[in-house]
Amino acid sequence: MERNGVGILAMDIYFPAACVPQEVLEAHDGASKGRYTIGLGQDCMAYCSEVEDVISMSLTVVTSLLKKYNIDPKLIGRLEVGSETVIDKSKSIKTWLMQIFEESGNTDIEGVDSSNACYGGTAALLNCVNWVESKSWDGRYGLVVCTDSAVYAEGPARPTGGAAAMAMLIGPNAPISFESKYRASHMAHVYDFYKPDLSSEYPVVDGKLSQTCYLMALDSCYRQYLGEQFSISDADYCVFHSPYNKLVQKSFARLYFNDFMRNCSSVDNDAKEKLQPFANLTSEESYQSRDLEKASQQVAKHLYDIKVQPSTLLPKQIGNMYTASLYAALASVIYNKHSSLGGQRILMFSYGSGLTSTMFSLKLHDGQHPFSLINIASVLDVTTKLESRHETSPEKFIETLKLMEHRYGAKDFETSKDTSLLPQGTFYLTKVDSMYRRFYEKKAVKGKIKGCNGIANGH
Amino acid sequence: MERNGVGILAMDIYFPAACVPQEVLEAHDGASKGRYTIGLGQDCMAYCSEVEDVISMSLTVVTSLLKKYNIDPKLIGRLEVGSETVIDKSKSIKTWLMQIFEESGNTDIEGVDSSNACYGGTAALLNCVNWVESKSWDGRYGLVVCTDSAVYAEGPARPTGGAAAMAMLIGPNAPISFESKYRASHMAHVYDFYKPDLSSEYPVVDGKLSQTCYLMALDSCYRQYLGEQFSISDADYCVFHSPYNKLVQKSFARLYFNDFMRNCSSVDNDAKEKLQPFANLTSEESYQSRDLEKASQQVAKHLYDIKVQPSTLLPKQIGNMYTASLYAALASVIYNKHSSLGGQRILMFSYGSGLTSTMFSLKLHDGQHPFSLINIASVLDVTTKLESRHETSPEKFIETLKLMEHRYGAKDFETSKDTSLLPQGTFYLTKVDSMYRRFYEKKAVKGKIKGCNGIANGH
Repeated sequence: MERNGVGILAMDIYFPAACVPQEVLEAHDGASKGRYTIGLGQDCMAYCSEVEDVISMSLTVVTSLLKKYNIDPKLIGRLEVGSETVIDKSKSIKTWLMQIFEESGNTDIEGVDSSNACYGGTAALLNCVNWVESKSWDGRYGLVVCTDSAVYAEGPARPTGGAAAMAMLIGPNAPISFESKYRASHMAHVYDFYKPDLSSEYPVVDGKLSQTCYLMALDSCYRQYLGEQFSISDADYCVFHSPYNKLVQKSFARLYFNDFMRNCSSVDNDAKEKLQPFANLTSEESYQSRDLEKASQQVAKHLYDIKVQPSTLLPKQIGNMYTASLYAALASVIYNKHSSLGGQRILMFSYGSGLTSTMFSLKLHDGQHPFSLINIASVLDVTTKLESRHETSPEKFIETLKLMEHRYGAKDFETSKDTSLLPQGTFYLTKVDSMYRRFYEKKAVKGKIKGCNGIANGH
Repeated sequence: MERNGVGILAMDIYFPAACVPQEVLEAHDGASKGRYTIGLGQDCMAYCSEVEDVISMSLTVVTSLLKKYNIDPKLIGRLEVGSETVIDKSKSIKTWLMQIFEESGNTDIEGVDSSNACYGGTAALLNCVNWVESKSWDGRYGLVVCTDSAVYAEGPARPTGGAAAMAMLIGPNAPISFESKYRASHMAHVYDFYKPDLSSEYPVVDGKLSQTCYLMALDSCYRQYLGEQFSISDADYCVFHSPYNKLVQKSFARLYFNDFMRNCSSVDNDAKEKLQPFANLTSEESYQSRDLEKASQQVAKHLYDIKVQPSTLLPKQIGNMYTASLYAALASVIYNKHSSLGGQRILMFSYGSGLTSTMFSLKLHDGQHPFSLINIASVLDVTTKLESRHETSPEKFIETLKLMEHRYGAKDFETSKDTSLLPQGTFYLTKVDSMYRRFYEKKAVKGKIKGCNGIANGH
């Protein structure tokens, strides 16, 4: 069987309709002006209403992807989920998604959930690609789902929340294919962000440590790339896991600093001069130096605008989507640049606290309908989806989080079933019974009930 | 790079030293005589003391495997963990294991945790095998760890607990290799056993439903095999996920009944006569019929003794090890039959509630030292390990479980650090600090401290 150019054939994204503008939130929180918008670099934050969760979002996005790319559910041979939002400690999210496939009589679908913080989606993706390249591939498609709801206790981390589910179809001859030559990982044991309080949805976070771990992991992976004579000029776009945009800015600057330290030709003379004062810092000092941070961001700015900025659309508008963040950033590049990506390379950096990280490379091709970059951009339909959202007050956001604190791990309750904000075709939670069993419904698609037309509009 | 015959090169197992004989437990519980020993088919149940958990067990078994097979930690390129025992909802068990590899400077190790009930180990194993067969394989070994502690609330499920960690080294030219032709999965959405109460270590279980789901999944997978003209006579051994031995007996009888229904030549005339009265049962009736259960077990008994019984040693002595159960059963066959396995085939059935299941086939070869069946059997050293255990009273077992109920998800405590029952070289938990960070120590290896000899004896 043909299995060259294995990678991503198709993508779709779902994110909640409710969001809070960061400018309003920082004012509400009494934070200094620009603390969230410039300090974190974020525009807006999506959050799940009380009828949405990681299961409902992934039911929606999988159903939507299959429909929009016209994929027979029987043609899926592997389904893997990446998530760090635990609703059940034993039953995988993948098994809830099996409902979609059981309907068509397809129960022969390998794969379960992969988990390590924000890295689980990358693990699922790499597993799916490996499956297609392995002897046990049966010629069918793989399907990867990244689904998370990022919520934080009151405090400085709260504005770094977000929520979304991504679905990606995997197979050969993909418009977004893996370059297996460029792959480097850095894995270690640290307590930078973790979820040991099992009864709470909120993590324990050491923000400063987590940022340093992220940058150290980035360095470690990139050093393996440099061994292959790689520099920033070899990548047309750099896509980073994005807990908040500021860290993405720092990350790109850090790669640039690495290029400088290796004396790469990608670093111009002006930049060399400005970075020279930092050339003798120890590794540890370099992570702590604010001056280096500023100088490297400044000299890298012109390249950031070209190579990174196109990836920041969804992460800045939605917030941290944990496992989905990196792939929402990739989707942003596809959406923004689809007509000029053929032949280009995207450098990807995936990070999950704890910690696990991998740098890998994607090669872009225009592709053939329905698996073309232009069609993926059209299905993603990012602008329409963002514009049809509902901005809510910080009070409404906080009220929802309070309610969810009580509902997390709870049983025997019904939701409001208020679907007014949800697009047609969206799955939503109706109740959790006395045995903790969860029940979902799908918001009717207009016209479909009357049999007039069967077109779902998404949102 | 050579990549034929990918599979299991080496195995090791760790299980807690403390255990309760089922005969004593059933008397203590006031259950009728034979309820646990014959009704469940179990001999003994291992349980974690307060200084052991899934992390300590996997630290122990990985260290032990690397040492006993003399594997340089730098030669590991992928490490995947299967577990359903959640200690942290975000940080993977794999990241704790990275400590072993960081010491030798190896942080470039892909893989995270795979989770769906007892199936996570199989997911990890299949992922690792696919990696070796994929384009991104870098020539190093994969390592799969299955680690679980199965504990239940007071009630009928409690005697079906157990605990263990298995480690398996993955690579080409393996003495235990995958036959990718024979692979069938059945996945569906059910609530037979799950863990929705996040603050409790105990699952919610519907025992009767779970047994039916298990047998239905078994049928569904086996039917795909039958499409390949497969019958029981094509397998030299049948190894099943073993929550308790009685279900293994029922499962083999069920395969035999399937062979009968397809009129396979493996079913003799006497058996045909005895099963004929059940030939017209509906599928649903067949799962509920006690008479069929009895009749099929009786006619399959002579084959069970040959093809299944050798796999039951560790599962009957330790109890349910969740993700490790299937592989402890495989290890039992290797241990019991290592000298006669060359050229033979083992049929494997993996089940995880929720549900996910896969049937697959392994082909056995004598192999070459250290990756030979005879050396694997020697490292497993099952009899010595079982004989050096400590039988405790049911009261001690219950007291430990009570203590662990308080410790589950807790912070800021120290353990007793009592390592008297632990073999040398075993990792154990010393404390969990106020930030929920967990600290482990390794029990000293005699002589090593004095520098006299560096040999760890395991247990």
